[in-house]
Amino acid sequence: MGELPISAHLLGKTIYLGAFVHCKSLQELDICEKGAIGVDERGKIAFIERGAEDLDLIFKQHHGWTAAKVVRVKDKGFFFPGFIDTHIHAPQYGNAGIVSKSTLLDWLNTYTFPMEASLADLEKARRIYARCVARTLSHGTTTAAYYATIDVAATNLLADICLEKGQRAFIGRVCMDSDLSPKWYRDESSADTIRKSKEVVEYVKRADGGKGIVAPIITPRFAPSCHHSTMCELAEIQKENGILAQTHISENIGEIQLVKDLFPDFKHYADVYDKAGLLNSKMILAHAVHLTEAEKVVIKQRDAKISHCPVSNSALTSGAAPVRDLLDRGITMGLGTDVSGGYSPSILEVVRQTILVSRHRSFEDGEAAKLATEEALYLATRGGAKVVGLEDHVGAFEVGMDWDAQLVSLAAVPADGEKELDTPVDIYGWESWEDRIGKWTYNGDDRNTAAVWVKGRLVHQRKSFEL
Amino acid sequence: MGELPISAHLLGKTIYLGAFVHCKSLQELDICEKGAIGVDERGKIAFIERGAEDLDLIFKQHHGWTAAKVVRVKDKGFFFPGFIDTHIHAPQYGNAGIVSKSTLLDWLNTYTFPMEASLADLEKARRIYARCVARTLSHGTTTAAYYATIDVAATNLLADICLEKGQRAFIGRVCMDSDLSPKWYRDESSADTIRKSKEVVEYVKRADGGKGIVAPIITPRFAPSCHHSTMCELAEIQKENGILAQTHISENIGEIQLVKDLFPDFKHYADVYDKAGLLNSKMILAHAVHLTEAEKVVIKQRDAKISHCPVSNSALTSGAAPVRDLLDRGITMGLGTDVSGGYSPSILEVVRQTILVSRHRSFEDGEAAKLATEEALYLATRGGAKVVGLEDHVGAFEVGMDWDAQLVSLAAVPADGEKELDTPVDIYGWESWEDRIGKWTYNGDDRNTAAVWVKGRLVHQRKSFEL
Repeated sequence: MGELPISAHLLGKTIYLGAFVHCKSLQELDICEKGAIGVDERGKIAFIERGAEDLDLIFKQHHGWTAAKVVRVKDKGFFFPGFIDTHIHAPQYGNAGIVSKSTLLDWLNTYTFPMEASLADLEKARRIYARCVARTLSHGTTTAAYYATIDVAATNLLADICLEKGQRAFIGRVCMDSDLSPKWYRDESSADTIRKSKEVVEYVKRADGGKGIVAPIITPRFAPSCHHSTMCELAEIQKENGILAQTHISENIGEIQLVKDLFPDFKHYADVYDKAGLLNSKMILAHAVHLTEAEKVVIKQRDAKISHCPVSNSALTSGAAPVRDLLDRGITMGLGTDVSGGYSPSILEVVRQTILVSRHRSFEDGEAAKLATEEALYLATRGGAKVVGLEDHVGAFEVGMDWDAQLVSLAAVPADGEKELDTPVDIYGWESWEDRIGKWTYNGDDRNTAAVWVKGRLVHQRKSFEL
Repeated sequence: MGELPISAHLLGKTIYLGAFVHCKSLQELDICEKGAIGVDERGKIAFIERGAEDLDLIFKQHHGWTAAKVVRVKDKGFFFPGFIDTHIHAPQYGNAGIVSKSTLLDWLNTYTFPMEASLADLEKARRIYARCVARTLSHGTTTAAYYATIDVAATNLLADICLEKGQRAFIGRVCMDSDLSPKWYRDESSADTIRKSKEVVEYVKRADGGKGIVAPIITPRFAPSCHHSTMCELAEIQKENGILAQTHISENIGEIQLVKDLFPDFKHYADVYDKAGLLNSKMILAHAVHLTEAEKVVIKQRDAKISHCPVSNSALTSGAAPVRDLLDRGITMGLGTDVSGGYSPSILEVVRQTILVSRHRSFEDGEAAKLATEEALYLATRGGAKVVGLEDHVGAFEVGMDWDAQLVSLAAVPADGEKELDTPVDIYGWESWEDRIGKWTYNGDDRNTAAVWVKGRLVHQRKSFEL
């Protein structure tokens, strides 16, 4: 983690040889046991060959690739698309694992706001942000939609760090101008919110400079944090720049009541965003645990996206989101760690909890509510890509897409007493491919994420692993 | 894992120096920042000093300890009691992480019985059992209540392996003599069940030879697996030998219906065991998800124990056990991984899921159903000790108890680019002790279990860790 100076890894043509797995559809994995994926100098997938093991044959079919670097899967591993974290608070990474006995609103005041405010100290911000980016990369997260803090300089720093470490990221300065936020942690005025938001949008666009790694994202924290007029202006900034927006919705019963009290003239929580012009196809709504029928309908109509954060929803006792119902309505969904409401920076952990929480939902809603392993993996990759509007670029392996990928390393169990391997997953050899993927999904962790690439650049490599 | 020939670690007097944490009560942790625990040649705790940092002072108070070995906690770690897994199927370890799309009864026939039957091959049994014991030790499990298979030789082998590796274990040959079990995986007759059970009881007692590491446990798989008359005879064997028994109860709706159909003359599921004489204070009932009021009352009356297995109950869509209600009734409870109904061999993972599942329960039962971190850690240690009848020996640090402990290693986050540490937990230095324990509980894994002792013997050591 962090050992690799990214700039050292110049891009060249590379052939990734061995098994690869990605999601064909919500229900179906595409498992190719013997694949060859050619990635060009721009980090784009130039070809995919199936049943290919013979390099000479590949070279015959693809002239100009004979000098390409070859990266082979060892043992029982496979290439898998990088994970997409559609909801994560970078400053809260320092609190990851501190789980409140209380619920959302208390937790914000006790743990979260003080931590966020403290990152106005740029040295502390660098420490937390660098760690957060390195850790999420080490867990295979190639794209993240970040909430930073209200501080402009620290938010810009997060963009710099993502560029430096090579993680694809949406960088959001958090907007909070209402009196409900603590005096010591809010914008001075609506005008201040707008000015600072524009500053960050400009900075992040300039910093990226067309590389397509970082992009700004408009981030009103949640309805109670902002004046409605401010949200309207933020929607304008979003529209002018053609960029994404993100916020929270319907996470917790107390929060929903608060929104009702604060916005008595609106039809419902979703309506507050809708009337501001924020409920659009480029909006990511985190949580969506307790939506009403009317809200589900308008979210679908506006094609707004939902980030499902089950680890957070269980840890903060928020509830169990009705994922199957939302999917059946055709609403686009991805997964979010929601660090540190969620304790884990790992999307693989979120995949597991997505499955488990759906089973708890099924006790109420019946068998159909259960999500299969394949479905949770889809949400973590292709689903997340759609949520952040990158479905033509990341989340799967298709010709023309970017090589945003992780090498999942799985090794056979050593004999008792033999040299121990760096993996929590035990593969015996009798497992089917489905079993192997199951064992990784349920017992795997960052030790199995041997290497991670974004746009063809190597951005993480386990120190015990040689490419 | 498995690198250490246990016999090499002769016992000598040892002083464990540094922070230690254990459970004072269900609600309260006892955190001693500067402790010294003296463990004698028999592996028993001879003294506990608090606020002790000066070895000379300790030597003055405890003559005869000047030559003792000293094991110091480094960095921000602490000693914690070893975990007690009150329900685990050792043969199913080979399937850990293969989570069925289906529920209990299907899963038994598709995954579980074939795997168990295949362990009549002793070479395969050794491979799986050795791995299971080494892995659970590496996760800090110092005591386990094991179900083996119906095979006598393989079950005896499990006892040998536990002795060899130094894990405290209850070894149960699984009893299945009813027609409901597959023809290719059941005892030949009731007489066969009884004979084989006696054989294993005798073997395990002899193998232990008074060392107090392994003990037999009577193991009728669950009511549908055994004729009632067989269960009655098993209860006799239990009584004669004064040993524990274990079985399953009320895990899944389909299973409960099956029991109702099979035993129409009994009041309820618990009554089937009660009438057989098995519902007693030395019985461990796994799951107990859907108990009726009458069953809860009789379980409390008989002082039978319950093993809570939330990972399994969620993964197999069995339900969410009403832990708070059971605890409030004064029923003794511990935690179980239920590998491989539960996908993880880690009790720390079960601790997390105990908390999360209790929060899902609270959506129905109200706030009081929520279990705190301290409570789940209690169930994993002192609670489990009571379940297996060892509360005077393990599960906490008290003078006269055995040193069954784990060294939890927590290190400060290295600066960006500095040498990476072998831990998934990030400690910055500003955390309170409660925060630190929280970070370990929620994000920790076997990388933080630096060393493990049973009865004072070092039975596991992370290879990257020096004592």
